Amino acid sequence: MVRVGIVGGSGYVGGELLRILLNHDQVEVSVVTSRKNKGDYVFRTHPNLRGLTNMKFSDVDVESLASKCDLVFTALPHGSSAKMVSRILERGLRVIDLSADFRLKDPRLYEIWYDWKHPCPELLQKAVYGLPELHRDEIKGAVLVANPGCMATSAILALAPLIKEDMIEPLRIIVDSKIGSSAGGASPTIFTHHAERYGVIRPYEAGHHRHIAEIEQELAEIGKREVNVAMTPHAVNTVRGILSTCHTFVKDKDITVMELWRVYRSLYRGCPFVRIVRDSQGLQRLPDPKFLIGSNYCDLGFDVDGHSRRIVVFSAIDNLIKGAAGQAVQNLNLMLGLDETKGLNVPPLHPI
Amino acid sequence: MVRVGIVGGSGYVGGELLRILLNHDQVEVSVVTSRKNKGDYVFRTHPNLRGLTNMKFSDVDVESLASKCDLVFTALPHGSSAKMVSRILERGLRVIDLSADFRLKDPRLYEIWYDWKHPCPELLQKAVYGLPELHRDEIKGAVLVANPGCMATSAILALAPLIKEDMIEPLRIIVDSKIGSSAGGASPTIFTHHAERYGVIRPYEAGHHRHIAEIEQELAEIGKREVNVAMTPHAVNTVRGILSTCHTFVKDKDITVMELWRVYRSLYRGCPFVRIVRDSQGLQRLPDPKFLIGSNYCDLGFDVDGHSRRIVVFSAIDNLIKGAAGQAVQNLNLMLGLDETKGLNVPPLHPI
Amino acid sequence: MVRVGIVGGSGYVGGELLRILLNHDQVEVSVVTSRKNKGDYVFRTHPNLRGLTNMKFSDVDVESLASKCDLVFTALPHGSSAKMVSRILERGLRVIDLSADFRLKDPRLYEIWYDWKHPCPELLQKAVYGLPELHRDEIKGAVLVANPGCMATSAILALAPLIKEDMIEPLRIIVDSKIGSSAGGASPTIFTHHAERYGVIRPYEAGHHRHIAEIEQELAEIGKREVNVAMTPHAVNTVRGILSTCHTFVKDKDITVMELWRVYRSLYRGCPFVRIVRDSQGLQRLPDPKFLIGSNYCDLGFDVDGHSRRIVVFSAIDNLIKGAAGQAVQNLNLMLGLDETKGLNVPPLHPI
Amino acid sequence: MVRVGIVGGSGYVGGELLRILLNHDQVEVSVVTSRKNKGDYVFRTHPNLRGLTNMKFSDVDVESLASKCDLVFTALPHGSSAKMVSRILERGLRVIDLSADFRLKDPRLYEIWYDWKHPCPELLQKAVYGLPELHRDEIKGAVLVANPGCMATSAILALAPLIKEDMIEPLRIIVDSKIGSSAGGASPTIFTHHAERYGVIRPYEAGHHRHIAEIEQELAEIGKREVNVAMTPHAVNTVRGILSTCHTFVKDKDITVMELWRVYRSLYRGCPFVRIVRDSQGLQRLPDPKFLIGSNYCDLGFDVDGHSRRIVVFSAIDNLIKGAAGQAVQNLNLMLGLDETKGLNVPPLHPI
Repeated sequence: MVRVGIVGGSGYVGGELLRILLNHDQVEVSVVTSRKNKGDYVFRTHPNLRGLTNMKFSDVDVESLASKCDLVFTALPHGSSAKMVSRILERGLRVIDLSADFRLKDPRLYEIWYDWKHPCPELLQKAVYGLPELHRDEIKGAVLVANPGCMATSAILALAPLIKEDMIEPLRIIVDSKIGSSAGGASPTIFTHHAERYGVIRPYEAGHHRHIAEIEQELAEIGKREVNVAMTPHAVNTVRGILSTCHTFVKDKDITVMELWRVYRSLYRGCPFVRIVRDSQGLQRLPDPKFLIGSNYCDLGFDVDGHSRRIVVFSAIDNLIKGAAGQAVQNLNLMLGLDETKGLNVPPLHPI
Repeated sequence: MVRVGIVGGSGYVGGELLRILLNHDQVEVSVVTSRKNKGDYVFRTHPNLRGLTNMKFSDVDVESLASKCDLVFTALPHGSSAKMVSRILERGLRVIDLSADFRLKDPRLYEIWYDWKHPCPELLQKAVYGLPELHRDEIKGAVLVANPGCMATSAILALAPLIKEDMIEPLRIIVDSKIGSSAGGASPTIFTHHAERYGVIRPYEAGHHRHIAEIEQELAEIGKREVNVAMTPHAVNTVRGILSTCHTFVKDKDITVMELWRVYRSLYRGCPFVRIVRDSQGLQRLPDPKFLIGSNYCDLGFDVDGHSRRIVVFSAIDNLIKGAAGQAVQNLNLMLGLDETKGLNVPPLHPI
Repeated sequence: MVRVGIVGGSGYVGGELLRILLNHDQVEVSVVTSRKNKGDYVFRTHPNLRGLTNMKFSDVDVESLASKCDLVFTALPHGSSAKMVSRILERGLRVIDLSADFRLKDPRLYEIWYDWKHPCPELLQKAVYGLPELHRDEIKGAVLVANPGCMATSAILALAPLIKEDMIEPLRIIVDSKIGSSAGGASPTIFTHHAERYGVIRPYEAGHHRHIAEIEQELAEIGKREVNVAMTPHAVNTVRGILSTCHTFVKDKDITVMELWRVYRSLYRGCPFVRIVRDSQGLQRLPDPKFLIGSNYCDLGFDVDGHSRRIVVFSAIDNLIKGAAGQAVQNLNLMLGLDETKGLNVPPLHPI
Repeated sequence: MVRVGIVGGSGYVGGELLRILLNHDQVEVSVVTSRKNKGDYVFRTHPNLRGLTNMKFSDVDVESLASKCDLVFTALPHGSSAKMVSRILERGLRVIDLSADFRLKDPRLYEIWYDWKHPCPELLQKAVYGLPELHRDEIKGAVLVANPGCMATSAILALAPLIKEDMIEPLRIIVDSKIGSSAGGASPTIFTHHAERYGVIRPYEAGHHRHIAEIEQELAEIGKREVNVAMTPHAVNTVRGILSTCHTFVKDKDITVMELWRVYRSLYRGCPFVRIVRDSQGLQRLPDPKFLIGSNYCDLGFDVDGHSRRIVVFSAIDNLIKGAAGQAVQNLNLMLGLDETKGLNVPPLHPI
């Protein structure tokens, strides 16, 4: 059994890591930390786990992590993670970091997008961007994996085939995302108060969302050209789920849906968590997070809009699973040489 | 008192017309028809009106309309409306038609977008597109007003100032709409079944939505140039409300938010139902239908995205009010020479 | 124009008072106070009122209230209200208090149910319990009206006819209430965080809800006998609305639905805001807050359960309107000698 | 591998059986039938299973079931199931029936509660009521298991300890249930249309719900005395989940919460799917289906109401799992001599 620690276990991502790892037969969670809740039972914060674990939160202590763990998940807020990760790595542990602190290769991008000077830029080149569909082999050997952002995951998986095949204008890419409330974390504010958050269709960070930086980085790498992405997220009335609608303009106006099937299938062949959803019959015709809640799937679908010379790509994930904890466990499996799907073979719930 | 009839009163738009006109002191609803429910009490179909009206639905009968009404609202499905409207007009009544059948000036567009040959194309030039913010004076003298589509209303009001001032690329306009379930009408299907419709973020008609035709028509007229609009709607988990997010690319990269304030204020000065929402403080920063449910407002907001040379415009309405019945009453007021806001001076509900 | 003040205007009840009074043609809101938000525009807290008022919150100041107002609504938390009300009354103003501080006649009940010693018990006899359906005439002459609690309003109106006619066992009354999130107020906590509050069916205060005291007081008065009420509220996934299900045991097992119609009609004849909803056809068969949101109605319905010798009564209200601000305006109208429905003649929205 | 068939696989319960059994390592689903959808891929009806199964629905054919299956789940509507079950049993297969057709021992009760004459009353004595917490040993040897109703499961588990210990008045039991939309099945009607069903707090079958018959049967058996249950269900705005609030009157007024802990623990010791939830700290204090969605748990909690001499018991389940398909698999495991939890060890999702 591999012993893992979870640093920052009281948030929603920490809770999901615990939930998933409880059913993972090669891994044992030996430590879960929370400054705020140290000494409390985990199930008081994550009531779904009542009866499933008697663990308590402990305070963060690198020595204790070093003695009790082989690998550590860090689920701390952006900016708090970098130094902690650096100290854990020094003890020889492997780390999967769920913050944004190691996702970007170029330290200057942190100054531009995060208004933050990276405290350990030398680690950025060591870190592997933890999107298995694009970086599977690098992840296997990584000591530090930077788990992608939830919106970034949905957007990159949607756009990578089109960029790789040079099918769209790379400087006119629009990602219009719709997202559930769990993506905002577990801290209540007036904006997340049920009476205020229920029923909303609420845009935010209209012109400058931080996930753009990692999306452009990854797409530029796969496309070997400059890419410009405009992203606007919208809070909608559900708890889990992201749908990213990617509006792109085709280079060749004669593109067909058949060709799109080919490029998507080609890039994601052998990827157990990517499903292509484009159907003319049945209850579901295009991706919708409703049909994958509780699973690690990313559902991708597309349409060609001849009127406006667009390709529209839809990408749906459960933001806490493929967008965070599930993808982290997928990375863990790869790092440990296990089957990529271990602990993640859970069919989605329907209806939900 | 002006006597009005409502043809097609059992749908949600018919119900809203009834609700609004109950509180309109210059108008009396003398007939409300429904083939399906003729003879039934209106409140059995619209239970909110229990205790407020004892009207019953009658069958559709043009002679009866002619004798009992001065003006008729037709709220029939697209395709069923044209002939009925033609017959009512022949009796000398004025008509506000809430279907799509008279919105387009060019009869060939019905063949392209609706796959339908218009049965009375000669009426199309007579009809006035009933968006008071753009056609106030024409509406006053109209005998036939074509009430705009709900998504079209939100998109046209959002984009008109930018097109008028020639600020954006007219052939690269993306409208990403999010919409509540009431926009789909009152007929149940498996797609609208609560267990299937709750919590969705579901795209549909990804590449070819019919409202595009009227949006392009109106924007081309105001801009005096060709306009191409790409629109993709998404069903989200609420009953009322549309948010249309309009992603546009600027012509002049030095555009400022200040200039946007100027052009929006300038076009909508004197428009009682347009509010500009762009705030750096308080509970609401940008348009969100949640804050206008129950009212005839269209809230418009915008942001400049320097990274991608975009202007993003957000447009929120209550799809059944400013998107349908409320706008129809606004048109009625104009046609009758009344204050535009009569019967519509209802503050939105919050929280809801 | 009567000049009214609203003390405690930043909560949801304060917002509703403002919204309703904006459309009241005999009343002008001259002051609205908020300690927390003094100096801020009202529409920053109540964004639905954007464009409808340019008022700002002021600090609470009794002298200022005395000079600017003829009547004051106090919408402060329980315990903070009593002294403020006392000081306002001393200046000769009339007061409608929306807290619990003047609802109970017997000061000892505050010690039992609220664990609080009333600071001005002499005022309790002066205060009139502001349920117009039971105390219309007293309210007309009152200087201090204690506006009922939202769950109390729904329960008392449901049970009064049965108690008055001595039809049920008075010591075995169960009120099982379901309630939307707006009833919990505008302050965010982890329990009201959207991700935690969405989709709940969450019981709370299972055995000891404070509204029981006023329900028992009012029912005992109308029945002239001791009454014992057990009440258990449940948070459900909506913002507005209460449904109270009252399970009662009949004294005479041969009671019929017809007799129930008679006793309900008899007590509520002439009450403009009580509707009896019991239908065998149409979309709505029994009360459901969904069909009265936005209005001041209380919908009552009932069924006889022969198997268990029960009468079940269902009572639905909009908790912020008939359960708070709307009822307060109804009381205001009575106090001013106006038509009871002034400013409240707004049909509910459907669908919502 | 045990080969099982699912008759009636296109409903929500059939879909859940498929989902759960996909992850059950001792069982293989060899047939899934649907009259309506025969020949169609299962994932077109249950889109969550896309990529997980390539099965198609077949028509119902008893010979085919007999040759391909060792055990059959029947998930047909009440009234359609009895004859089908009888024919399957004749082929020597074991059956778990998810309809109501074999739950009642006394055939006359079907005439009273279901207005239906049972076609094979001789089978009623053979059938075992499939609530493992009360009938574990009988289930192990059964050839026909009648899987309990969802509301019945929640109510019986809540009340059994109190009835067994003779702590409450057996003729004054009130069960007030709140329930999600999936319990109404997959067929759309105007009452389940999203615009009509969203946000409701809608009572139905106020005085005569059919599940009462099985609740009384089971409680009378465990209590060895007559029991009368009054039940009123309410539709609320969620898809999955039931909360049954059981209002009971104590016999001995000095009952304490401590004693309740004892009797609940005592009856449910060794029951892996019953959790007792009564906490004074943390996010969850009492049962709420939100915290067990996706799992086979039944969460039970209670409170003593000294004011009204009540015990209130709260019982939460996922209606499609512990209320239907999960419990059926629990019964399957027992019938096959497997660990009761096989295939059901899935932690609930939170937040959801």
